[in-house]
Amino acid sequence: MTQPRDALSFPPSNRSFLEPHLPQNEPTSDLPFTTLTFATSLDSSLALAPGTRTVLSGPQSKAMTHYLRSRHDAILIGVGTAVADNPGLNCRIEGVGGYGGSGLTGQPRPIVVDPRARWEFTETSKILELVHEGKGRAPYIMISAQTSPSPEKRELLERYGGKFIPLELTTTVSGGSEIDWGVLLRRLREEGLQSVMIEGGGTIINSLLGPDSAPLVDSVIVTIAPTWLGQGGVVVSPPRRMDGSGHPIAASRLTGVQWYPFGEDVVLCGRISV
Amino acid sequence: MTQPRDALSFPPSNRSFLEPHLPQNEPTSDLPFTTLTFATSLDSSLALAPGTRTVLSGPQSKAMTHYLRSRHDAILIGVGTAVADNPGLNCRIEGVGGYGGSGLTGQPRPIVVDPRARWEFTETSKILELVHEGKGRAPYIMISAQTSPSPEKRELLERYGGKFIPLELTTTVSGGSEIDWGVLLRRLREEGLQSVMIEGGGTIINSLLGPDSAPLVDSVIVTIAPTWLGQGGVVVSPPRRMDGSGHPIAASRLTGVQWYPFGEDVVLCGRISV
Repeated sequence: MTQPRDALSFPPSNRSFLEPHLPQNEPTSDLPFTTLTFATSLDSSLALAPGTRTVLSGPQSKAMTHYLRSRHDAILIGVGTAVADNPGLNCRIEGVGGYGGSGLTGQPRPIVVDPRARWEFTETSKILELVHEGKGRAPYIMISAQTSPSPEKRELLERYGGKFIPLELTTTVSGGSEIDWGVLLRRLREEGLQSVMIEGGGTIINSLLGPDSAPLVDSVIVTIAPTWLGQGGVVVSPPRRMDGSGHPIAASRLTGVQWYPFGEDVVLCGRISV
Repeated sequence: MTQPRDALSFPPSNRSFLEPHLPQNEPTSDLPFTTLTFATSLDSSLALAPGTRTVLSGPQSKAMTHYLRSRHDAILIGVGTAVADNPGLNCRIEGVGGYGGSGLTGQPRPIVVDPRARWEFTETSKILELVHEGKGRAPYIMISAQTSPSPEKRELLERYGGKFIPLELTTTVSGGSEIDWGVLLRRLREEGLQSVMIEGGGTIINSLLGPDSAPLVDSVIVTIAPTWLGQGGVVVSPPRRMDGSGHPIAASRLTGVQWYPFGEDVVLCGRISV
């Protein structure tokens, strides 16, 4: 089988620095191995504005993202990113299924967190087009148990091999309701997904950076580009954290840190400190 | 002469990566060699809150800052930082004047940008205490030509060897008035200062990051610590920039970039792209 022209190459010499930060053996708990990964500017922006796709990092970082996808059973995004970016959410590293490999080997399962099922995907959404072309898997869409997607959407999704997965929401201290990450990740593990790479967007990343997430997130991989996007971007910065006396303290810190200069960018790997 | 106990060591093995980004020969223009340097969290914060001194980077980065100070004739901060931090603004690298060396050799001139002369320094301000102890130079305070500091302040400052330097303010497009960096830097050069290291705070850094500053800033050195301070910090992020059609574009970019992992932190060196 020939390589499609859009296959990406990520040489073995670049792979070794990532290895300690990637899923190894089958997880021993009921949680998947979970990697949080994203790319920001120096001023911690993911994009110039909400709903704007911004190319931040260089071609090497793009190939790295696709290599990371090949090392996880699933890749997860929020509905905001799905609506804004019309993403493919497949893996284009040479050798995986659809890019030189057989079947769908190495293609991760896309997971879209969409509590109210507001993502209006169609047959021409990129993610379903790639399924049609044999270059990716259909998404699992995590919805609230109180949400009923239309029969048409459900039928379309299931026809491509995807499905809606309902989750009970958790009531928050302030009386709202939200998805509990522990519940969601355990549900993915029940689906046979042993590793999950969480890619964005800002709301999801900020909700997972705090020390409360340390037991859930096994690895954090951040690419930083030598650019300032400027005020008004979509910023990664977790909620303010206070000590017992009401003074602000650092919201989160990484341990076991390693930095890898990578083209014009730098890649930071670590774990959230408890 | 014995080394004071608070002298810092920055080994030669760590110096080489900085060398291409430091002042070399006497500048050929009427501007000093200008380095912009600061340390941020991953979410681009200098401090947890305005007026709060936040220790972000590790001991190696602190020694680096003092080594950088030893390589510049002057170090510059804004009045906000002077008021909030009560900074020493001297150089504590072993071998400079006051730290094993003779006289004030290698001690930079502190410059405080304080248009309305609102910094209320006294004999117990750290910066003047260090002058008294022979461990640093008295500051030059850049004020608006329309400002008249009290005779007592002027007398105190001059007694320690400092002075007020009046500058004409420039009228901005919006009708306000502000210091023109070109005017200020040329004035420092006239004072015989061939190199200036600009250290902060946020207002000053943000005003100098844009492409308009590229002709003034020769080198940018940013230390990034693997911490998120969280929302509400003092953020480095330049003003929004638009293209001709009113769409946001990246506010600033560095060229000639080099990243150096340094303990738990990373150091980024580059130049502002035009």
